[in-house]
Amino acid sequence: MRLTTFSDYALRVLIYLGSAPQRLATIEQIAAAYGVSGNHLMKVVHHLAQRGYVETVRGKGGGMRLARAPQAIRIGEVVRTTEDSLALVECFEQDGDCRIARACVLKRALAEALAAFFAVLDGYTLADLLAPEAPLRRMLALRSPAR
Amino acid sequence: MRLTTFSDYALRVLIYLGSAPQRLATIEQIAAAYGVSGNHLMKVVHHLAQRGYVETVRGKGGGMRLARAPQAIRIGEVVRTTEDSLALVECFEQDGDCRIARACVLKRALAEALAAFFAVLDGYTLADLLAPEAPLRRMLALRSPAR
Repeated sequence: MRLTTFSDYALRVLIYLGSAPQRLATIEQIAAAYGVSGNHLMKVVHHLAQRGYVETVRGKGGGMRLARAPQAIRIGEVVRTTEDSLALVECFEQDGDCRIARACVLKRALAEALAAFFAVLDGYTLADLLAPEAPLRRMLALRSPAR
Repeated sequence: MRLTTFSDYALRVLIYLGSAPQRLATIEQIAAAYGVSGNHLMKVVHHLAQRGYVETVRGKGGGMRLARAPQAIRIGEVVRTTEDSLALVECFEQDGDCRIARACVLKRALAEALAAFFAVLDGYTLADLLAPEAPLRRMLALRSPAR
């Protein structure tokens, strides 16, 4: 049981952007801060932009920033969009053909468990994840904002 | 986000055995009932026997049966043993190297969400899954017990 790398990276991008609200960030900067491949982040950023979490500014000096306040970004909501499937087992899929699907209490139990999982994540917003502001900025090699 | 086929099949084997308590079942019978490969079930049954959920009787006329009462088999407990990893994201692993791991609230949120997932499954025992007794026996092509 694991989230996709896509979800993991999407959340990392949001944490980066939320930690550096004063400027436009580039994919290269985010990739360097986490030590991951920029190629992997391209699709992630495209997804986040499509879903209205991130806005991009083109051209020289361009980059991206959060399109919503961190308080308005629920983590459960993000993960629901970034996971390509929430079909925990075969019978969650339309073409699943487990013979006992129609009498299966397990399916209901798993659906309840999944709902509980997301209920916890929906209790967190990006703002909660940004709370350790100073250590996050240090670990992401971001300069402290001029105050 | 998906459970392994291994978990799925382990739960199906337990449901089968719990639905046919009067006799020893063979892997071939279980495979036929679900229309899945017997090869896949071999490892699953071995695992369930090692963990004390199933006991096997060797020789002609042999087979397997539940080693515990269905009420004593918690579904969360089974799934914890059958999932090969509960590392939802890289930083759950010992050799994970996400740069912000030490300041990351997300890791805590995901751990809480995972705990909530299993708390729901721990509220179910195999006995709960066996409650729709007649339809399950029909779908698994099991004869009704002589009463």
